[in-house]
Amino acid sequence: MNAMNYDTVALDEAKQALVIIDQTKLPNAIEVISLTSLKEIWDAIYLLKVRGAPAIGVAAGIGIYLEALRIADTANNFDEFYQRFLKAKDYLNSSRPTAVNLSWSLNRMEQVVLQNKDKTIDEIVALLHEEAMEIRAEDIRVCRAIGEFGLTLIKDGDGLLTHCNAGKLAAIKYGTATAPMYVGQEKGYKLRIFADETRPLLQGARLTAFELQQAGFDVTLICDNMAGAVMRNGWINAVFVGCDRVAANGDVANKIGTSMVATLAKRYNIPFYVCAPTATVDMATATGNDIVIEQRKAAEITSMWYERPMAPLGVKVYNPAFDVTDNELITAIITEYGIVRAPYDEGFREIFSRKAR
Amino acid sequence: MNAMNYDTVALDEAKQALVIIDQTKLPNAIEVISLTSLKEIWDAIYLLKVRGAPAIGVAAGIGIYLEALRIADTANNFDEFYQRFLKAKDYLNSSRPTAVNLSWSLNRMEQVVLQNKDKTIDEIVALLHEEAMEIRAEDIRVCRAIGEFGLTLIKDGDGLLTHCNAGKLAAIKYGTATAPMYVGQEKGYKLRIFADETRPLLQGARLTAFELQQAGFDVTLICDNMAGAVMRNGWINAVFVGCDRVAANGDVANKIGTSMVATLAKRYNIPFYVCAPTATVDMATATGNDIVIEQRKAAEITSMWYERPMAPLGVKVYNPAFDVTDNELITAIITEYGIVRAPYDEGFREIFSRKAR
Repeated sequence: MNAMNYDTVALDEAKQALVIIDQTKLPNAIEVISLTSLKEIWDAIYLLKVRGAPAIGVAAGIGIYLEALRIADTANNFDEFYQRFLKAKDYLNSSRPTAVNLSWSLNRMEQVVLQNKDKTIDEIVALLHEEAMEIRAEDIRVCRAIGEFGLTLIKDGDGLLTHCNAGKLAAIKYGTATAPMYVGQEKGYKLRIFADETRPLLQGARLTAFELQQAGFDVTLICDNMAGAVMRNGWINAVFVGCDRVAANGDVANKIGTSMVATLAKRYNIPFYVCAPTATVDMATATGNDIVIEQRKAAEITSMWYERPMAPLGVKVYNPAFDVTDNELITAIITEYGIVRAPYDEGFREIFSRKAR
Repeated sequence: MNAMNYDTVALDEAKQALVIIDQTKLPNAIEVISLTSLKEIWDAIYLLKVRGAPAIGVAAGIGIYLEALRIADTANNFDEFYQRFLKAKDYLNSSRPTAVNLSWSLNRMEQVVLQNKDKTIDEIVALLHEEAMEIRAEDIRVCRAIGEFGLTLIKDGDGLLTHCNAGKLAAIKYGTATAPMYVGQEKGYKLRIFADETRPLLQGARLTAFELQQAGFDVTLICDNMAGAVMRNGWINAVFVGCDRVAANGDVANKIGTSMVATLAKRYNIPFYVCAPTATVDMATATGNDIVIEQRKAAEITSMWYERPMAPLGVKVYNPAFDVTDNELITAIITEYGIVRAPYDEGFREIFSRKAR
């Protein structure tokens, strides 16, 4: 069974279910699961069964649509429908605090409700279905465009390093950080990819190495602390990473360790590119210091994957899920509307005006 | 049972055995094992049951003494004794390629043989016993001196970060990187220690967090890729690491990831100190590029600690055990004869002339 034949996130219309690949089971088992209740969907996001900012956005869109469908069955009027919709939205939004795509997608869905107050509830639900499907289709177009822009920054034969998984498994198709790789492969480029394993949850080992190996890439897995060594060896021509939230000044929140890779890339004069759908750019967040960094459980570090605890019992642990990469470490941010370079606030304003056209 | 009541490496005179704590079993079990044959000792070094450059040096000294004792039983003359001694020495020396203490200790033992050709074989073996015990006693004195010098570089209340284990478990007492911490603790300093877990073999989680916790320190375990985040948070006042080999120009080979920590420390203007017994300084190695970096098995990364493989089967892996930290990233190198700053070659010449006095 090839995981690449499955969609990362999809809607099963017949079963009225959100269908995902359970990413906590990869790479040992490819389990496609169907989620119907809002609680199941909240758990799937919190437990990282579905993860990656774009994929979370799509899952949340489908999830709130499915809930709206259920609410519509029993809601007596628009106000009741809207209040219950809002409650469900707030609940789903609480599943992960850092990725902006989650709230971005849920806000988009809420707008559909608010802009169609005059329609029947059934009509609103139909429009919510349409919007959720559009969020999903957009993700594919956006990632493809990022891949095309990213490809202009590399050449055939290059060695590329990536951190965590901002791949197909983090989106619907192409991924963000991997989009230049997949688009390059379509055009016959031979690329050598280095994947950081990405402790503590090993998304690089379990997901990135897995999906790139399945897609036929020359991929080499390394521990996070080896990124400097491969750069010093001269094996890396560029770094591509995804992101969970980009502040207006170009500071980037992404998986813990990203700022480390950026610092190393700067030392070895290797360009460091962040692949960011505009949905991830949050102009309401001034700088990286304004981004809430999710803290996770100690057990992820001390015992999660191990037969026996591999750290002393009761040891204090610091386990931030993300870090902030300062804009000065970033060579460029690649959006679906083009490549943005410093000063980022100006660049983003230009990108958003292009998007509005 | 408190592991800190046991010596990391000792000689059991009655059993004619090398006695070590099996560090591959920590922190879940404290197993003290006795090794008698040369093959057992080679395996213990290769399999990291005993590890850390100073501890390996002491183990090798005791190991070659025990073998000399056996050879003496059947050797007919000095030449036969010496030839068999040399063969055993070369074999033991092949167990780990990067740490200079291994060959340094074995060469010291060989010198004892060569300088006492005129004595009886039994007398030579007695002198080898004395030398092995002196290597061990020296390690304790050397680490203590490094601790005293290191302590002059920090103040009460500081946050310190260390990578891998260059602690008591890597030496006999005090350790190297931890020596300023233990000596500071004796003097009533309250220090906050951050320990990188140190993938793939988790010496930081299993050994450093363990020994510092047992010794009553305020220690926090982090993944390697979180070192930048804790520095950016302003929690770290200085970094202390050990080393496996220091080149004449001050380049340092140490556990993979050390150069990453040094690069991060430079970015955040945090002093980066290498604790190096002079036995680890190899003036015959001009620069870090002349140091052989041991490559280890893929399984250490893909499956070693896991119930199920956490990377796709057959994925290519790069697994260097060490990296080279360029001298420009190092604030100072702390030896038992004093603190050396750039230019390191001059500094080391001064240190070695002080040592020769």
